[in-house]
Amino acid sequence: MGAIEVAQTAYWGAQTQRSLKYFAIGKDVMPRAVIRAMGVLKKACAMVNCDLGKLAADKKELICRSADEVIEGKLDAHFPLRIWQTGSGTQSNMNSNEVISNRAIEMAGGVMGSKAPVHPNDHVNMSQSSNDTFPTAMHIAAVEEVTHRLIPAAKYFREALERKRVEFNDIVKIGRTHLQDATPVTFGQEFGGYVSLIDRDVVRLEETLVGLRDLAIGGTAVGTGLNSHPEFAERAAATIAELTGLAFKSHPNKFAALSAHDEFVYASGALKTLAASLMKIANDIRWLGSGPRCGLGELSLPENEPGSSIMPGKVNPTQSEAMTMVAVQVMGNDAAIGFAASQGNFELNVFNPVMIHNFLHSADLLTGTLRSFADYCLDGLKVNREKVDSYVGNSLMLVTALNQHIGYDKAAAIAKLGHKEGLTLRDAAVKSGHLTGEEFDLWVDAERMTRA
Amino acid sequence: MGAIEVAQTAYWGAQTQRSLKYFAIGKDVMPRAVIRAMGVLKKACAMVNCDLGKLAADKKELICRSADEVIEGKLDAHFPLRIWQTGSGTQSNMNSNEVISNRAIEMAGGVMGSKAPVHPNDHVNMSQSSNDTFPTAMHIAAVEEVTHRLIPAAKYFREALERKRVEFNDIVKIGRTHLQDATPVTFGQEFGGYVSLIDRDVVRLEETLVGLRDLAIGGTAVGTGLNSHPEFAERAAATIAELTGLAFKSHPNKFAALSAHDEFVYASGALKTLAASLMKIANDIRWLGSGPRCGLGELSLPENEPGSSIMPGKVNPTQSEAMTMVAVQVMGNDAAIGFAASQGNFELNVFNPVMIHNFLHSADLLTGTLRSFADYCLDGLKVNREKVDSYVGNSLMLVTALNQHIGYDKAAAIAKLGHKEGLTLRDAAVKSGHLTGEEFDLWVDAERMTRA
Amino acid sequence: MGAIEVAQTAYWGAQTQRSLKYFAIGKDVMPRAVIRAMGVLKKACAMVNCDLGKLAADKKELICRSADEVIEGKLDAHFPLRIWQTGSGTQSNMNSNEVISNRAIEMAGGVMGSKAPVHPNDHVNMSQSSNDTFPTAMHIAAVEEVTHRLIPAAKYFREALERKRVEFNDIVKIGRTHLQDATPVTFGQEFGGYVSLIDRDVVRLEETLVGLRDLAIGGTAVGTGLNSHPEFAERAAATIAELTGLAFKSHPNKFAALSAHDEFVYASGALKTLAASLMKIANDIRWLGSGPRCGLGELSLPENEPGSSIMPGKVNPTQSEAMTMVAVQVMGNDAAIGFAASQGNFELNVFNPVMIHNFLHSADLLTGTLRSFADYCLDGLKVNREKVDSYVGNSLMLVTALNQHIGYDKAAAIAKLGHKEGLTLRDAAVKSGHLTGEEFDLWVDAERMTRA
Amino acid sequence: MGAIEVAQTAYWGAQTQRSLKYFAIGKDVMPRAVIRAMGVLKKACAMVNCDLGKLAADKKELICRSADEVIEGKLDAHFPLRIWQTGSGTQSNMNSNEVISNRAIEMAGGVMGSKAPVHPNDHVNMSQSSNDTFPTAMHIAAVEEVTHRLIPAAKYFREALERKRVEFNDIVKIGRTHLQDATPVTFGQEFGGYVSLIDRDVVRLEETLVGLRDLAIGGTAVGTGLNSHPEFAERAAATIAELTGLAFKSHPNKFAALSAHDEFVYASGALKTLAASLMKIANDIRWLGSGPRCGLGELSLPENEPGSSIMPGKVNPTQSEAMTMVAVQVMGNDAAIGFAASQGNFELNVFNPVMIHNFLHSADLLTGTLRSFADYCLDGLKVNREKVDSYVGNSLMLVTALNQHIGYDKAAAIAKLGHKEGLTLRDAAVKSGHLTGEEFDLWVDAERMTRA
Repeated sequence: MGAIEVAQTAYWGAQTQRSLKYFAIGKDVMPRAVIRAMGVLKKACAMVNCDLGKLAADKKELICRSADEVIEGKLDAHFPLRIWQTGSGTQSNMNSNEVISNRAIEMAGGVMGSKAPVHPNDHVNMSQSSNDTFPTAMHIAAVEEVTHRLIPAAKYFREALERKRVEFNDIVKIGRTHLQDATPVTFGQEFGGYVSLIDRDVVRLEETLVGLRDLAIGGTAVGTGLNSHPEFAERAAATIAELTGLAFKSHPNKFAALSAHDEFVYASGALKTLAASLMKIANDIRWLGSGPRCGLGELSLPENEPGSSIMPGKVNPTQSEAMTMVAVQVMGNDAAIGFAASQGNFELNVFNPVMIHNFLHSADLLTGTLRSFADYCLDGLKVNREKVDSYVGNSLMLVTALNQHIGYDKAAAIAKLGHKEGLTLRDAAVKSGHLTGEEFDLWVDAERMTRA
Repeated sequence: MGAIEVAQTAYWGAQTQRSLKYFAIGKDVMPRAVIRAMGVLKKACAMVNCDLGKLAADKKELICRSADEVIEGKLDAHFPLRIWQTGSGTQSNMNSNEVISNRAIEMAGGVMGSKAPVHPNDHVNMSQSSNDTFPTAMHIAAVEEVTHRLIPAAKYFREALERKRVEFNDIVKIGRTHLQDATPVTFGQEFGGYVSLIDRDVVRLEETLVGLRDLAIGGTAVGTGLNSHPEFAERAAATIAELTGLAFKSHPNKFAALSAHDEFVYASGALKTLAASLMKIANDIRWLGSGPRCGLGELSLPENEPGSSIMPGKVNPTQSEAMTMVAVQVMGNDAAIGFAASQGNFELNVFNPVMIHNFLHSADLLTGTLRSFADYCLDGLKVNREKVDSYVGNSLMLVTALNQHIGYDKAAAIAKLGHKEGLTLRDAAVKSGHLTGEEFDLWVDAERMTRA
Repeated sequence: MGAIEVAQTAYWGAQTQRSLKYFAIGKDVMPRAVIRAMGVLKKACAMVNCDLGKLAADKKELICRSADEVIEGKLDAHFPLRIWQTGSGTQSNMNSNEVISNRAIEMAGGVMGSKAPVHPNDHVNMSQSSNDTFPTAMHIAAVEEVTHRLIPAAKYFREALERKRVEFNDIVKIGRTHLQDATPVTFGQEFGGYVSLIDRDVVRLEETLVGLRDLAIGGTAVGTGLNSHPEFAERAAATIAELTGLAFKSHPNKFAALSAHDEFVYASGALKTLAASLMKIANDIRWLGSGPRCGLGELSLPENEPGSSIMPGKVNPTQSEAMTMVAVQVMGNDAAIGFAASQGNFELNVFNPVMIHNFLHSADLLTGTLRSFADYCLDGLKVNREKVDSYVGNSLMLVTALNQHIGYDKAAAIAKLGHKEGLTLRDAAVKSGHLTGEEFDLWVDAERMTRA
Repeated sequence: MGAIEVAQTAYWGAQTQRSLKYFAIGKDVMPRAVIRAMGVLKKACAMVNCDLGKLAADKKELICRSADEVIEGKLDAHFPLRIWQTGSGTQSNMNSNEVISNRAIEMAGGVMGSKAPVHPNDHVNMSQSSNDTFPTAMHIAAVEEVTHRLIPAAKYFREALERKRVEFNDIVKIGRTHLQDATPVTFGQEFGGYVSLIDRDVVRLEETLVGLRDLAIGGTAVGTGLNSHPEFAERAAATIAELTGLAFKSHPNKFAALSAHDEFVYASGALKTLAASLMKIANDIRWLGSGPRCGLGELSLPENEPGSSIMPGKVNPTQSEAMTMVAVQVMGNDAAIGFAASQGNFELNVFNPVMIHNFLHSADLLTGTLRSFADYCLDGLKVNREKVDSYVGNSLMLVTALNQHIGYDKAAAIAKLGHKEGLTLRDAAVKSGHLTGEEFDLWVDAERMTRA
């Protein structure tokens, strides 16, 4: 293979350096969440190997301390590898082994690169193979991100929606179907619909975590677990569960776990479902906030940045724009994940980095936009009551409330009169002679129409 | 709107006829499963309306008998409308109302088109709106197709895999990672991996049915349930459950149910996950069956159709080809569903027909290919034992078994010798002088390597 | 392989029948355009084979007459095979051979199935292989559909837009960016933008036809042209060009032509671009037509079908809904095509049927919706002048016209006053005392602002 | 809006700072190519404004010098904004204005933030709006990246393929269709097929550049060009062409240019087509290099990194893995672009950043993998001659060469004999008694079969 030079300041070694040379493709590097997960995994393996009597206690200690620094993010600068590398993630596994080994050696006062007293392969990678470690790190990273960041952000967003639902609950507004005037609803009902979507999205995310918590570790190179202790898989998963506080388990079938990544397709489907919900909500809010004079104008959005230097009231729905762009990206990422997961051959799928890259990209963007939208759009949202009321007052759709009092034909005639002459429904009703203004006020009650 | 002529032989009426004129787009018509679901829904509504005292018993009877014919498929020819129509599916709802009404009128000895004694709107569509009926029919259709056709087909395929897993269980073969020779596995392990994928796919499908079983019916036009009895939603869902034998429930939030179709995105994600599994399995099998002389040649595929007129043994992996094409289609369909579901505005999403079209297309294709592949590829699959054994015998990867006996360095030297001189591992081992042939046979046991 | 029974009334033979059994997957059958293309191809090949002295003139005559019936669609019922079959389209090639052979035999007074005097393989398939015929038929079908149906439909739609552009040309309306009020434009400019999009879409479609007109025929099984005359490829392409009147050529590299389908990915990209244009146009039109009272209401859409039984003026934008659903489908189909085209191995790509299915599906749907939208939405489109004018009159965005007369600060103050007190811009200007009503009318000229 | 603090060391101003606060979403920042394009654009606008007498020469000078630093990348650290911001890219336009203004002020010895002598809006943004600048920068960036980086990389890769085509030209190998043994081809033909794909990909990329070279600049806020000189659009495009050496022109319809991004969908289609080609090529190469003992083994891949620590000859096809992962990503990115481009409303599409992000991501990744694959996989590729010859020698597919000498039936009988008894074709032929070994050697000439 030949020699390759590594900078003295780098904890990484030859295999990482070689990857930097051969895979100078793009700018996407392995995400922090994966690096952290590698730290967790290497620590767990060292603990289990020690418990099983395969690794000396002092080496285990060194590996754990070094891995802790990886977990905490102190060594992130030493994980420079790209996504666009070996499809098994082998090089990032080796990067982890090299960094943990060298940092451990340094802690022990040894000579970096000497592989003593902590050898990257023999000790840090003991009982492991890239083929089981990288998928394991993918699962740990995905579960941690969804559990600790995305779901809380979704709930945070949900609470912001719920606060608005409560605040706007009783405000009656015109409903719209096909973008056309329809019978009335309340803002509480509209926002309650959004809350319902997010509630179900959270349930779906949680459902997909179940499969993602099954770990490949212990399968080693081809799924048979060759070179690992019979108890290693279960113990490693249990230790990872302990270290993370999350209910990880050993995947019941390591052959499936190494050669396919079905759980990522499914979980990405839940991310995409959330994205679809957000697209709808963000679109509704920007349309309801459109105007100020020539749009729907039912909502006033908080003015975070100048919309127009000269024109007051022009507030661009920028949080909606960011959120809908995120939704679009998540859909694209989902397409990549499905494609990648389908391309495994025999004992291995070699599209691992591209899958985890897209998954974490989606999860991270969703987390960001959920919080941002809650803080900078929802919280400051106001109903433009005058406009909302005027739509309800002007709409002819409330004519349906008259059916039961004066019959369908007369009601339709009133609507036609209003439409033809550009009258409000009340004016048309009175003008028609079929009922009095008092009767109209008594019978046509938009609020009651929302409680049918 | 003007008059429009309808053929005397058609049960449909003006609204359907009008749609045929305005939407002569493409060839995709509303799927049978949706028509059937419309029948179920209309029958259930008539029953509930009657129970609630809103619909006379004789009209109910007529509607139920007519709807039964829709359910049974007797009137399919009277549902000619395209997918590419009103986005709410309104025209297919009206098509159902018109057909059921006219057939009921006919049964009652009335004059078709007279709207008496069974009026398409007042009676068949009573307490309903297109906006809640069509999504309800989508859910019924999807749940019935997945429950009664797709999941059984997946299980049928799974059983075919499992039979092969048992049959091939103990046959040791070379493992392959990165398409490169790796340590051995058994066919039982490979096929067991496939079985595991499908098992989990079935679980995922079942999980997504839970959300799909929540029905929009009772929401009427905007989700408020205007013009329907307060108990209508719950009762209609319960009656649909009764008629179908499936655990349908009333959706807890009708605003969400009408304006978004999150459950379809999620469920399509499960279809896509299954597609990814099948892509992998079908690819593995065709690669393992590649040859007969110049490929991997580990499997012999059943010879269903001529591969080459002159050359025996050339069996094209046509079932794999059909299956992988289906997988590709399901991925494309999933992209369409996610996009469509994200495009709702206010109280309605008007991408309903395109969503259900893609969903049922995916489900139907998967059902077909699962059964076809099981019957015409898996069942006749044979292991080419000679080839399989020769790979295991020739591979140098088994050298790893020698590590613990003669040390890593000597083992590596043997592999290098074998590679350089093109020897089998056994010949190289003996030639190296580090061990005897007897020791090799004792220590290098491929089967044992699969049980690590 | 065993015997298989074929119905006496069928022109097809054993291979087709076998495919019906083994590939009872889904309902999608080979599109008419492909069947027709097969007819064209088989006819051209017979002509060339005869010219090259390989096929007797009488057999050629019979094949040509039989193929003509395939071309004309008279034998469509005899092409029952599914898309989900052998990935090379072999079975549809054989279906063509069998039908043309049997119909030719019938014409010659022979016994169907006897393979004399016209043998399906030896004569109809002479100098051909499924591997070059099916891709050739795909290209012919795609080029014919895009040239004869899609591009004319796009131009038809373009003309409908252009008529409206002319009709509405000088009507000044409010511009909207970020859904917010912006400076004015004319309807002519908006519709001119749409016309420009379609013009460019047509150019793009035409560009992609160039590559699609390169034909694989002559490559036979692996691209080498084995078993075909050296002049066959060029002559066959030239004959196809002659028969179709389209500039088909022989693909310069048959190996590429058989093993990849890059041209379909590119051409599908042009379909997708058109779909994106249509999504935008259809969305604009339905939003501008939203209302009648509680939406933007600038356009009145033709009333093709009842929007609401009781409410006049509620016209659902159903043509927009059909068009946007088509756009979504085309995006999904494009995803399937890209995926499929990437999956070739060695000398063949075996995802042919799924590619052509999706491509023709997209082209057909686009054709349908373009014509339908032109006829049933654009042609009847009217501007609601009162509403349009009131937006222009009410909008504060016209304040920018005052900058050059009274300076930015005073102009901004006027806008703020208008916003705060809910005044029209003119009223605010006069109230501010910075200018007179006459000056306002002179300086603030919305129409002039559109000609900057 | 309230005050916001900006670090003294930052050239950016309040609007950028505000965006950092409101859009802390994800990690994707505006790509270097867009920042550079913004520099080019701002410089060009200053030059034109000065020429048109609207901007003083000294201010122009300062803006140009400052913009030059942006162009050269010296100020990249001052462009910290995310992709996930205002959908028009307004904040990145303002970021450019602020940085160029402040750096110009600094050069002039002024006080940063004082907006004198160079005002970010009045001078740097003169005659412009975010709505035309950002799309212009997108086009400049895309055209520069594709022209200067991607196309050269594709040609570089093409040359590497071509060198191998020449080197391997005459080596006869077995062809494979459906993964099954087929008639022979040469490596020259296979690699010539790849070269053809890339040649056509380059043509397609160049075709799509034509539309991308049409610039929106001069449209200002809504397409009318309000507040810009009538000659501004043409002059600005010409100046940009001059500064970049690329044939940019003014887009003939600014309304289309601002409200849709059809050219990106089309151009992304060309990127996707390239990705599909690369997927096929990279897959072929890794499959041909599979082994070393239990795969196809026709190619030997260069050994860049350790495949297995113990086993020589196990070379993982890592460059193929990186390239296929890139292809998958490009397909996902393309889905996002198509979706985004379809979502424009009225005078503006507000999915700009997500579109350019995905487009440049795809272009950059393709550039990287093309060069990397050429250098580290193609250049070191070797044919394993022994294996290649043995396949040709063993394959029964060459039997077709005997047809013309001994007739189809005897040839088929020989193949059957060979298949049944596991003989080479030659041995079976001789054993059959239908021809001698000498005749076989004379008649069965694989090389000749490749030249049919």
